[in-house]
Amino acid sequence: MKLLHKRIIKDGVVLPGNILKVDSFLNHQIDVELLIEIGNEFKKRFDKKKITKVLTVEASGIAVATVTAINFKVPVVFAKKDHSHNQDSQLYESEAYSFTKKQPYVMKVSKKYITSVDTVLIIDDFLANGEAVKALIDICHQAKCQIAGVGIVIEKTFQPGRGKIENYNLHIESLARISKMDNGQVTFL
Amino acid sequence: MKLLHKRIIKDGVVLPGNILKVDSFLNHQIDVELLIEIGNEFKKRFDKKKITKVLTVEASGIAVATVTAINFKVPVVFAKKDHSHNQDSQLYESEAYSFTKKQPYVMKVSKKYITSVDTVLIIDDFLANGEAVKALIDICHQAKCQIAGVGIVIEKTFQPGRGKIENYNLHIESLARISKMDNGQVTFL
Repeated sequence: MKLLHKRIIKDGVVLPGNILKVDSFLNHQIDVELLIEIGNEFKKRFDKKKITKVLTVEASGIAVATVTAINFKVPVVFAKKDHSHNQDSQLYESEAYSFTKKQPYVMKVSKKYITSVDTVLIIDDFLANGEAVKALIDICHQAKCQIAGVGIVIEKTFQPGRGKIENYNLHIESLARISKMDNGQVTFL
Repeated sequence: MKLLHKRIIKDGVVLPGNILKVDSFLNHQIDVELLIEIGNEFKKRFDKKKITKVLTVEASGIAVATVTAINFKVPVVFAKKDHSHNQDSQLYESEAYSFTKKQPYVMKVSKKYITSVDTVLIIDDFLANGEAVKALIDICHQAKCQIAGVGIVIEKTFQPGRGKIENYNLHIESLARISKMDNGQVTFL
């Protein structure tokens, strides 16, 4: 997706440790014009599937998943990370490791909102180590729903994310695929 | 906002301890049609202000703030709760107490994304104890920006939230104001 490539080159900041900061337009401050284009692109790429729910995980996936769900006219569900005292007792749970926060966490989705009749599109902002997406896939497997595919805004192809989820034979679409980040320079695949 | 009132009566669940669960349509699974109407309503109510940014806090405020920001054609910024190892060192910080999670947390916004030239609309899903909104106002004060107002989806008027923020003399708009939740019944003001 050219608009996204351009924006990453213009405003993305490469930090040591293969970190790409896109918090000026994607995951702290969000440029809503770009966001709408991202939602339109996911609609185009998954348009042939009869999607009934869009699934993501809080927090930075929510905006992207919401505009995508608006395009498909279906509900968006976001997996929760924290223990809330108001949460349902009937939950799908899956553990993932956050490399950003350097700790594991448990992702939770109420059993009411994803069921075996659903066809789910999984959306997230990043695919790097693959932990979050793998846990979302695991939750879909627990729910015995169909998975329409996995839509990723930015994939770092040099990290193990895609490898971890490739064997599920899912339709994966990444809008920007970064193969290298050397000396502050981003190279797309 | 009638559509929201109806939906709260139909699908809201009142639990002991003055808890209103709206996770089937607002803050775990989100009904995107209702969400769009909420965004339109905030646009109508704050349309006379020259808003430059919409500010909310992760996670459940993000979807509402995003559709609102789309209507105003301005960026949305969401305050972060966790310590991320990628975060900027130049941050506005404000402490709030989460009654849902029964613990305090620090809300953080990069100084790059809210500045003294901004006119900020604060958006959140709930106003109950007022901790989150008060911290967002505090962050705006640190940034020395204008505050266009505070837009709330659901306010519990019998809790201290509004009292905590009323003395700032801000334009507050709540789309549903609940005055009582007795025996599982919701009463609107």
